[in-house]
Amino acid sequence: MGVPFELNTMIVTKGNETREEENLFKLTKEGYRLYPIDIPIEVHKTIDSESIGTAVILKVEWEREKTTIIYRLNSLNSTN
Amino acid sequence: MGVPFELNTMIVTKGNETREEENLFKLTKEGYRLYPIDIPIEVHKTIDSESIGTAVILKVEWEREKTTIIYRLNSLNSTN
Amino acid sequence: MGVPFELNTMIVTKGNETREEENLFKLTKEGYRLYPIDIPIEVHKTIDSESIGTAVILKVEWEREKTTIIYRLNSLNSTN
Amino acid sequence: MGVPFELNTMIVTKGNETREEENLFKLTKEGYRLYPIDIPIEVHKTIDSESIGTAVILKVEWEREKTTIIYRLNSLNSTN
Repeated sequence: MGVPFELNTMIVTKGNETREEENLFKLTKEGYRLYPIDIPIEVHKTIDSESIGTAVILKVEWEREKTTIIYRLNSLNSTN
Repeated sequence: MGVPFELNTMIVTKGNETREEENLFKLTKEGYRLYPIDIPIEVHKTIDSESIGTAVILKVEWEREKTTIIYRLNSLNSTN
Repeated sequence: MGVPFELNTMIVTKGNETREEENLFKLTKEGYRLYPIDIPIEVHKTIDSESIGTAVILKVEWEREKTTIIYRLNSLNSTN
Repeated sequence: MGVPFELNTMIVTKGNETREEENLFKLTKEGYRLYPIDIPIEVHKTIDSESIGTAVILKVEWEREKTTIIYRLNSLNSTN
């Protein structure tokens, strides 16, 4: 009778993000994930790759065992 | 640099819910609230009032320091 | 790079609790579980059995993929 | 009837940590805080200061509206 969650501290896109606007992206992940909202976090393409920049999550949605986030990409790391 | 949220174990409507469909309701609360999704929980009109029935939350959204839930009211307590 | 945990809304003892004092009990469960602390929650022996009473969790510990709680059993349901 | 938590993504010591062993530290913070356990996170002396290194939290305890963590400091940033 518990609800499985995963605490996430960064965004790992795996290239699945879609651009909504200028620097606003949407990403859906499997399972219920608890993300830090409203504060800057790192964005990675894969878990093992370097950070591609920082973003702020503006919205989190949990439904049907999926989590969808809307995030604003704030800065890109120059080497990327 | 933390994100305040509130762990909630029941739905307290305060009469602010809106009916979306037959037995499907929508409720927006202040702040970020972590609700048990997909499992039956109690619904109360106020914190101190008796349970009016049980519901299952189908969707939770966090945005702009508000939490919106969609829930299906499953059973009404007969004394109500 | 996420941390799996389970949101729990009640205590399910499965008979594994140990008595620490008068009405104070200790229970260790597998995995990391987020429990409502400091507020009354239901205690069940199994997920499907009736509530045996209400308790307030006073302490929660996460370590080595286990969760240990200390709870005070407040009231016993009379039919038990 | 909710339980206030704060989602934390890093350790901010404010110099309040105590050394338990070689590179093992203990830190108590006000309120209930949800920390990522078992994975590397950044350690800062203050919110605004540079990271002083990375650590892995080995234990989290919530009791009496305080959170105590035990963490292993893994690497120190060379410029510190």
